Amino acid sequence: MNQVALRFSREEYAARIAKARAAMADKGIELLLVTDPSNMAWLTGYDGWSFYVHQCVVLAPDGEPVWYGRGQDANGAKRTVFMDHENIVGYPDNYVQSTERHPMDFLAGILRERGWDRRTIGVEMDNYYFSAACLESLRRNLPNARFSDATGLVNWQRAVKSPAELEYMRRAARIVEAMHTRIFDLIEPGMPKHELVAEIYRTAVRGADGHGGDYPAIVPLVPSGVDASAPHLTWDERPFEKDEGTFFEIAGCYRRYHCPLSRTIYLGKPPQKFLDTEKAVIEGIGAALEAARPGNTCEDVEAAWRKVIARYGIEKESRCGYPIGLSYPPDWGERTMSLRPGDKSVLQENMTFHLIPAIWQDDWGLEITESFRVGPSGAEPFCNYPRKLFVKD
Amino acid sequence: MNQVALRFSREEYAARIAKARAAMADKGIELLLVTDPSNMAWLTGYDGWSFYVHQCVVLAPDGEPVWYGRGQDANGAKRTVFMDHENIVGYPDNYVQSTERHPMDFLAGILRERGWDRRTIGVEMDNYYFSAACLESLRRNLPNARFSDATGLVNWQRAVKSPAELEYMRRAARIVEAMHTRIFDLIEPGMPKHELVAEIYRTAVRGADGHGGDYPAIVPLVPSGVDASAPHLTWDERPFEKDEGTFFEIAGCYRRYHCPLSRTIYLGKPPQKFLDTEKAVIEGIGAALEAARPGNTCEDVEAAWRKVIARYGIEKESRCGYPIGLSYPPDWGERTMSLRPGDKSVLQENMTFHLIPAIWQDDWGLEITESFRVGPSGAEPFCNYPRKLFVKD
Repeated sequence: MNQVALRFSREEYAARIAKARAAMADKGIELLLVTDPSNMAWLTGYDGWSFYVHQCVVLAPDGEPVWYGRGQDANGAKRTVFMDHENIVGYPDNYVQSTERHPMDFLAGILRERGWDRRTIGVEMDNYYFSAACLESLRRNLPNARFSDATGLVNWQRAVKSPAELEYMRRAARIVEAMHTRIFDLIEPGMPKHELVAEIYRTAVRGADGHGGDYPAIVPLVPSGVDASAPHLTWDERPFEKDEGTFFEIAGCYRRYHCPLSRTIYLGKPPQKFLDTEKAVIEGIGAALEAARPGNTCEDVEAAWRKVIARYGIEKESRCGYPIGLSYPPDWGERTMSLRPGDKSVLQENMTFHLIPAIWQDDWGLEITESFRVGPSGAEPFCNYPRKLFVKD
Repeated sequence: MNQVALRFSREEYAARIAKARAAMADKGIELLLVTDPSNMAWLTGYDGWSFYVHQCVVLAPDGEPVWYGRGQDANGAKRTVFMDHENIVGYPDNYVQSTERHPMDFLAGILRERGWDRRTIGVEMDNYYFSAACLESLRRNLPNARFSDATGLVNWQRAVKSPAELEYMRRAARIVEAMHTRIFDLIEPGMPKHELVAEIYRTAVRGADGHGGDYPAIVPLVPSGVDASAPHLTWDERPFEKDEGTFFEIAGCYRRYHCPLSRTIYLGKPPQKFLDTEKAVIEGIGAALEAARPGNTCEDVEAAWRKVIARYGIEKESRCGYPIGLSYPPDWGERTMSLRPGDKSVLQENMTFHLIPAIWQDDWGLEITESFRVGPSGAEPFCNYPRKLFVKD
């Protein structure tokens, strides 16, 4: 048996694989190619920044999963996955970023060798790490296979968290609390933005409560003033200015498990529109958290939020939340449910979400968010950090 | 005219677009969909962490490029791209991570409106941000279009750097020098690894020489001991130990332009195998840098390196370098050329590479690397940092 320091018990990996196989059977999938690094890690423990080249986990209805990746990364797999080394398969380096041969060509040969080339093969059609060229290669090389869209198949199995996963997310929560505390301590007019971001990173990786931090799947999003009208700007070297609001959309991360939390800081006396929006958002968050109980749907949570802000004359088109947990760049969400109209997914206890009822206006923005676990009678926020617009005058 | 603080002159963007259009014409491509965030930024200035949802730049043979992305991110485009606002087009939020509709469905409608739906459309078939589902959607929605593989088409235009780009890379070089200096100052047996990584991040973002740092497209890769047999492990919370080597594969980044540089530190007295390998690698780097002159090919550079290490009885299967510059996660390479046998790409002045002749053995590893510009008579390294195995006893 492979001796590695796994992050979860072998029983937990076995349970995850059983869930994934049940979902495969439901969809008539006889072989699953898992290219999403988050899904690869969840099923096997694999952890490494190798997803910039093609790789996957191959899951058949029985036997161990097979890790497939670049030859040089097989050593990383040997250091992190639970499987026997015979189920760690590397491809030659001249397949890397080549215009003449594709790593999925080589994989097709392996699938043929194992007698898996006439199956219904599930592929993650809409994943960053399954390009159009991947599918073309598989179709060309495996003419007897049928391909079935398995986007999100494994992601859905990840929705309800285990006790061990929740513990990792709680550690991530302590980290993001420390990050926000540090931000509020340091921010002041004149401080160049990158100097503050440097401290955010330092705090994120030093960790909290005796637990070190991992890299969040999204970098700090910290726009000020008019830039805060845009949700996804990163940072620059300009100083913070008086009479400007900045939101800090950041996450703590512990062993790839995330706890995002956003807060907004206004330097100076906030204009009335900030205060009015703060009031609406906080009341809306309260209503949404209360609605986030087992049996309710995703759209119920959004409706509770929307009902409140409508009374304040605020509209928000974009979704107000998504599931969170284990993740790799470029997204810390799980890409299954969305808290928005039309999403009738039913909440279950121990699902985990980032409620992000952000308000982006034409020339300013405000984010106050909460990450939570669905508890037996409503949402239980992971963080204990003041839910308000922060003001430093 | 759109008033934004662009990172390069409008003339430079115009020249880039002209190069891309010439390449399109060469390949008979009448419309180009650019999904690689690095290519999007290079052509238009767009910068934001929004590539976790579908987006692209649409480039026709004339007129301004069109930025296409999530509605809420249109504000970020307005803050960063040179185009008029009429060429910034957002899609509704219910297309985000939906199982019922795909952002490329919506784009197809826009292409039809503009009369672009019967063209030969170039798509980046093998890019992280062009999934198999993207192509399926376009094929389904645009039955009169022909699709042509444009993987790397824009990337190739980026190979030769402008003076302004080289200046950004020099600033990134100062940053990575500062990062390595900080590492060597702080590392010692007993220091938990994440504590050192926290300082690496802090130094990277604080920057150097009066210039703040941006986030590198790859996180610090800092494996120790046996873990250093694997190229892409990140970090954990274990302390550094005496009598162990650790390599630090990191990059400085300035406004998305990268300068990677790896060094290895041994805590204690290095075993002979480290010293022998150090000698071979340094001599091999010297030979490779000398071979990296205009007119030589990528494989010439690799051959010069391989010839040296063969004399020391060392073999290395994987490529020993790749082009660098502007990049977004998950890769700081440009994904065009590779320094390896068979790559007959001809070097031109002001191409820029990361020479990474890393040695990963079964239970240890050593990385000493250089990033360089192809100068008129050979490589000119960006960094001025001792090229050696560092030892702290």
